[in-house]
Amino acid sequence: MGAPQLTSREIAELRVQIPAWRLVEEDGVKKLRREFSFANFADAMAFAVKLGDLAEAHNHHPAITVEWGKVTVLWWTHKIRGLHRNDAILAAKTDVLFT
Amino acid sequence: MGAPQLTSREIAELRVQIPAWRLVEEDGVKKLRREFSFANFADAMAFAVKLGDLAEAHNHHPAITVEWGKVTVLWWTHKIRGLHRNDAILAAKTDVLFT
Repeated sequence: MGAPQLTSREIAELRVQIPAWRLVEEDGVKKLRREFSFANFADAMAFAVKLGDLAEAHNHHPAITVEWGKVTVLWWTHKIRGLHRNDAILAAKTDVLFT
Repeated sequence: MGAPQLTSREIAELRVQIPAWRLVEEDGVKKLRREFSFANFADAMAFAVKLGDLAEAHNHHPAITVEWGKVTVLWWTHKIRGLHRNDAILAAKTDVLFT
């Protein structure tokens, strides 16, 4: 980490690589958000666990919401209260994990 | 299931048994919400998995949000777009799981 928050232009450029992710803002903090659909609760939870392993491996942790048939993921960087290049990279890795 | 949505009075009576749960409303749907704190991400995820097992055992599923050191749980009943007695019971069971 250590790098500054991404500019709007940098975010726009990175989002081309992760088109399924929406840019949202919560309490003034920009985040990347994507919903993933599953056939049932167990499959959704299994994906959340795999994503948790990915997060631990990178020592960078998203918010993962598990519901019946759905997992919602939010990536952002607490320390800078916004988006770091790393968030876009981990969003892309989340996509790979899903496919 | 099948029973109607709880009245405000019934909710108030049940909440006495689960004082740590807040009554929230999202898009007009009443839900029970509690945050649980953990020492790290792994402990938070482990609790989410245990709660998922509880949910599967009862065939009733909450929204579980896992973050670093925190799990937020929302119980409500989709079918009636509100709170059923079962939600209060599962909130109480979630408390037991945590302790």
